[in-house]
Amino acid sequence: MAKRTGSLPRVLPVRNPAVPAYRWLYEALRGEILTGRLRPGARLPGSRDLARQYGLSRGTIVNAFEQLAAEGYVAGSVGSGTYVSPTLPEELLPLRRTVEPPRPPHPPRRALAGYGRRVQLLPGVEARPTRAFRANLPALDLFPVALWSQLVARRWRRATLGLLSGSEPLGYGPLREAVADYLGASRGVRCTAEQVAIVSGTQEALDLVARLLLDPGARVAMEDPGYIGATAAFEAAGARVAALPVDDQGAVLRAASLRGARLVYVTPAHQFPLGTAMSLARRLAMLDWARDAGALVFEDDYDGEYRYSGRPIPALQGLDRHGVVLFAGSFSKVLFPSLRLGYLVVPADLVERFAAAKSAATRHGPLVEQAVLCDFIGEGHFGRHLRRMREVYAERLGVLLDSARERLAGRLDISPVEAGLQTAAWLPAGVDGEAVARQAAARQVEVTPLARYARRPLARDGLHLGFAAVDRREIRRGVRELEAILGS
Amino acid sequence: MAKRTGSLPRVLPVRNPAVPAYRWLYEALRGEILTGRLRPGARLPGSRDLARQYGLSRGTIVNAFEQLAAEGYVAGSVGSGTYVSPTLPEELLPLRRTVEPPRPPHPPRRALAGYGRRVQLLPGVEARPTRAFRANLPALDLFPVALWSQLVARRWRRATLGLLSGSEPLGYGPLREAVADYLGASRGVRCTAEQVAIVSGTQEALDLVARLLLDPGARVAMEDPGYIGATAAFEAAGARVAALPVDDQGAVLRAASLRGARLVYVTPAHQFPLGTAMSLARRLAMLDWARDAGALVFEDDYDGEYRYSGRPIPALQGLDRHGVVLFAGSFSKVLFPSLRLGYLVVPADLVERFAAAKSAATRHGPLVEQAVLCDFIGEGHFGRHLRRMREVYAERLGVLLDSARERLAGRLDISPVEAGLQTAAWLPAGVDGEAVARQAAARQVEVTPLARYARRPLARDGLHLGFAAVDRREIRRGVRELEAILGS
Repeated sequence: MAKRTGSLPRVLPVRNPAVPAYRWLYEALRGEILTGRLRPGARLPGSRDLARQYGLSRGTIVNAFEQLAAEGYVAGSVGSGTYVSPTLPEELLPLRRTVEPPRPPHPPRRALAGYGRRVQLLPGVEARPTRAFRANLPALDLFPVALWSQLVARRWRRATLGLLSGSEPLGYGPLREAVADYLGASRGVRCTAEQVAIVSGTQEALDLVARLLLDPGARVAMEDPGYIGATAAFEAAGARVAALPVDDQGAVLRAASLRGARLVYVTPAHQFPLGTAMSLARRLAMLDWARDAGALVFEDDYDGEYRYSGRPIPALQGLDRHGVVLFAGSFSKVLFPSLRLGYLVVPADLVERFAAAKSAATRHGPLVEQAVLCDFIGEGHFGRHLRRMREVYAERLGVLLDSARERLAGRLDISPVEAGLQTAAWLPAGVDGEAVARQAAARQVEVTPLARYARRPLARDGLHLGFAAVDRREIRRGVRELEAILGS
Repeated sequence: MAKRTGSLPRVLPVRNPAVPAYRWLYEALRGEILTGRLRPGARLPGSRDLARQYGLSRGTIVNAFEQLAAEGYVAGSVGSGTYVSPTLPEELLPLRRTVEPPRPPHPPRRALAGYGRRVQLLPGVEARPTRAFRANLPALDLFPVALWSQLVARRWRRATLGLLSGSEPLGYGPLREAVADYLGASRGVRCTAEQVAIVSGTQEALDLVARLLLDPGARVAMEDPGYIGATAAFEAAGARVAALPVDDQGAVLRAASLRGARLVYVTPAHQFPLGTAMSLARRLAMLDWARDAGALVFEDDYDGEYRYSGRPIPALQGLDRHGVVLFAGSFSKVLFPSLRLGYLVVPADLVERFAAAKSAATRHGPLVEQAVLCDFIGEGHFGRHLRRMREVYAERLGVLLDSARERLAGRLDISPVEAGLQTAAWLPAGVDGEAVARQAAARQVEVTPLARYARRPLARDGLHLGFAAVDRREIRRGVRELEAILGS
């Protein structure tokens, strides 16, 4: 037991030079208190004594003592004497316990759940300048920041206690109304506002659907090549993913792949990554199949807002008479990705289950942003921005097509589909997309080989080229760099 | 096959009076096109003919035609003649298919996954005025809205493309740094910024932990009575939840409940809902148990910032030398709940798995709000707001205690713990908390019976009383109403 004295009962543990001095002293003194070697009421050594004994600066000692005081281990103050807290109840002191210093990192082998072992990191956003041909990104430099900011400021000026409190799990009611109206008018989606779930984006929609529908071992069918985020969500759930090939009418409904499937994932408006639109015949056949199989169809309308020629292609969901389609979209491709707002239109009989899953996952999405987005849509800014972006992107796609025709004919054939924020482009047989992507990266050009999206080898590789996020000059630069790589 | 004529090939389906007229006409005509009875190029009947034939207004017909045109089924315009779209490719037409009208709702029996069957709806926020004694809510009327709004506006003025793009899964780097610093200084948490995951709140933290660690059938132990959102997360994961009783030293570490547990959920700073602090002896014993069992401890520090008397109680996490504690907190109780930002401090060896799970769930949280919060903390506003709120809440707690002593002595004994946003109060033996809560609700007073948080019957019921969200006048009104209910 410690004497009530100003000197420490024994020499403190040797200091690890990697640990800041004040931290070492704090931990050493705390160890003395916790093990009972310094008892309640015991006086700690004076700061001058400690400074002398251990070669520490006075500031170091003051820091350590302040930390101990803040955490309630000691009372008093530097100068007038510092004591082990006399109110530290006896029963708190584990007398027979020694406090170990932080151990060297030898991570324990944790027994993770199946999900924990399966889930894969999806790539995050790297902080680097936007270059040709980054995909999946709108022209952020054309987003009306000042206008959005005004709407944000107005919402804050009028902030109610309700706005600060929260909402129902599926989101801010007026936004759900606005989204239902927008999707009805622009995408041919038939739903009530009650069927609209506000989510953080397509990934959360996929995740919630996978959790609600897929036990480990369940079967899912999806397009191949297809969206990696969907594959990741299904595989993390433990589902077995079967491939649906993609031809010029969209996903081919292969009976072998569909057999036993609980869910089919498709991108009917603009196949990801190949760009084809699913034909009406396929759409209707898919809906019939889902009804007969008791399965659901996840329609990822990831960039269905953008179509630059030909007829608009209404959503598969609008043809659905059996309540088998889950329709997902995001505001990332029209507004900005870091907003993290999207929607999932849920068949009426599943709304209650989705609300439960959303509430158990995050309670609900952030509210002020939902209110601002609601204003942005309701006051017509959304429609105007979308129309303006369609013009800009159509022009940028034109620049890409013209420039590629001029410089890359025969070496990179761009798919004729005119929609979305990116397009597929085919390399000559035998040319390796990964090699081209590496050479392009060295020239500050970003292209993704189509083979990366494929589960089975592609007959011919290609590149995924984004054209929306950068201006015509950068697009032309990108084409010239590709020309240099692919030879003339 | 339809003749190329201005009159319809047959009478359209009978109109359901519940469906708007334009919708009925649109669907009927679309059905004719989809079944091939109206072929590409066929002229639709004139609007005057249709108006006469079906007793419709011209506006109704224009609306239906415009919808068909918007979706690409027809071209031309009202007046000059409307045709089935001649570019509608032949292969899109499923000639042998009849389009059914929307079916009466007979929801299919969906085969949900285990999670889908188990997950329970957590109560949302109801839009109603804040009354005594609403719990789990800070004083929203004292939140510095103007200041926050200025920081938001400044972030938008300086918005970079990076801020609009996104972040790593675990959140905005500078915010993770700020949270690590804050938790180290104020809560005794020892972590690096890399260990801090920004999440939407404690619910998301619980959900991610449950997914990563708990397969169906896994065992979890938690305090009883305890937080319903935690029970819900564990039960949705399919875990078997064992109860740890709570006494005046916090959770009792009952061997039978802990046996085989992969995870223990505790609220050491201020037990939810009873308010006791976990003793140091229990803390150390729990850490030892977790190390030996290869289990993890979820420390929910849901209102650890608020302590009005006695020593601050540093986090259990700060005593952890074995990397067994997951420390979760939220900004809902200091700032405002609809912000949806919180944190989870993860043992170093689990950081990569958490990043994967977060990326697969929502990719990452919204970024602008994270940046604003980072400014709010970094510029000292957070600390100032917290200190001010501590004073306000301490005073409100004092009003509650004084008023209850005066009017409710012997009928409602308020727990002596002075921390948090709410307190437990005990009813006389035999008085039913639910009955009191019902009578209170009729008098615009909100109290939650403690029995609602309990898995096993309580020896004596009580009420959970929030004192932070409303002013002293409303607190006194609440006490008078309870006096009227409980008799004198």
